[in-house]
Amino acid sequence: MKKLYVVGFGPGSMNGYTIEALNALESSELIYGYKTYIDLVKKNFPGREYIVSGMHEEKDRCKEALSKANEDHTVSIVSSGDAGVYGMASLILEMAKDYPEVEINVVAGVTAALSGAARLGSPLGHDFVVISLSDLLTPWEVIEKRLKAAAVGDFVTVLYNPGSHSRTDALEKACEIMLENGRDKDTVCGIIKNIDREGQERHIMTLEKLKDYEADMLTTVFIGSSTTKLIGEKMVTPRGYKVD
Amino acid sequence: MKKLYVVGFGPGSMNGYTIEALNALESSELIYGYKTYIDLVKKNFPGREYIVSGMHEEKDRCKEALSKANEDHTVSIVSSGDAGVYGMASLILEMAKDYPEVEINVVAGVTAALSGAARLGSPLGHDFVVISLSDLLTPWEVIEKRLKAAAVGDFVTVLYNPGSHSRTDALEKACEIMLENGRDKDTVCGIIKNIDREGQERHIMTLEKLKDYEADMLTTVFIGSSTTKLIGEKMVTPRGYKVD
Repeated sequence: MKKLYVVGFGPGSMNGYTIEALNALESSELIYGYKTYIDLVKKNFPGREYIVSGMHEEKDRCKEALSKANEDHTVSIVSSGDAGVYGMASLILEMAKDYPEVEINVVAGVTAALSGAARLGSPLGHDFVVISLSDLLTPWEVIEKRLKAAAVGDFVTVLYNPGSHSRTDALEKACEIMLENGRDKDTVCGIIKNIDREGQERHIMTLEKLKDYEADMLTTVFIGSSTTKLIGEKMVTPRGYKVD
Repeated sequence: MKKLYVVGFGPGSMNGYTIEALNALESSELIYGYKTYIDLVKKNFPGREYIVSGMHEEKDRCKEALSKANEDHTVSIVSSGDAGVYGMASLILEMAKDYPEVEINVVAGVTAALSGAARLGSPLGHDFVVISLSDLLTPWEVIEKRLKAAAVGDFVTVLYNPGSHSRTDALEKACEIMLENGRDKDTVCGIIKNIDREGQERHIMTLEKLKDYEADMLTTVFIGSSTTKLIGEKMVTPRGYKVD
């Protein structure tokens, strides 16, 4: 059987790999990925052939990975976090129809919403949404509609891609939408940057302060629901048990 | 340092453990958890003392775990999936204020939204929400408000605890709320039961058919967004790349 693994390897350090991800990478001859991800994977799995590509080269990367798998190489394509959450899994599955003999195995991983939550405390103890603020592939109106729905539904809201060099006001706009749709300015929010990597940073602040925070692509943002609270330095959304 | 690990171990098989979860359990003398979870963990980590408790005994379980950690035992309390997603992490952090010397370490894991998604294809390739249909600790009006917001926001919607012996109509009601709030009856939906465990089942169906599905507590339900599609047997939500 021709095999292609689409592997999410968690935040970056070896600690976040699942056994399934380890096994997939150990069995692979060729490993494809975005440069930043390959740099993280390479040191743990020497002796493989790594094929690095840049941003905006996702389709070429997927095509080549599929085509090499079709030539009977065991291939992995990697994303940090979970390859199924804003990762390469959907694109691979969309392109795989031209390679019917290749079996696609998506290997789930610990996405930043989960790894970031663990570092902040337990913000995802109740219902939550995950929204990407990147308007590269999604019209801003769709993002806006979803932010509004997240606010109205009083979900804990996790924001991926909250900012970049070219998008400096997305987070500010997102916070304003939250505030305009009933979320309190004192809502407990958390920020986590470079999760489990060098230079990890963790901040807790109100929704009002979050508006002015300058976030980059390696930052994950958590906006609490109306029940989210601060316990010591931990951001916690209770499940609902009565605690004295 | 007194240590308590709150460990999510993924869907159940060894494949879904992270290295961090393995290390936490390997270092623990005492492991606390709900019976079903302990049965899954026990076979992989022999030689530990396991303390089993039932449903509705969560507070006693957390209190005892904290108190043993406070007596200098290294303790883990386990949940399947991610302990921070409807798991024990929030409750532990709420109760931990009485044990200031105990350091709480939340160990993130692959929650059913992620492991289930990988088995179905790639339904979480774009923005999504996670909602529990259990009204044990949450008023049904809150659940209803969130389902409505999820429908209006056109999120991929993952439902946890879609049914049980005593709640047989929650999923039907959830589907009706989706349909009443603009979601198409032909929306691609997926169901996954007993993920990575004996008796795993996987079904793809429309939202209209989902209404009549009898789900239990070990089932995770995925309702697609307007862009979710079926490719072969896979449920895929595109990220937005243009694919010919």
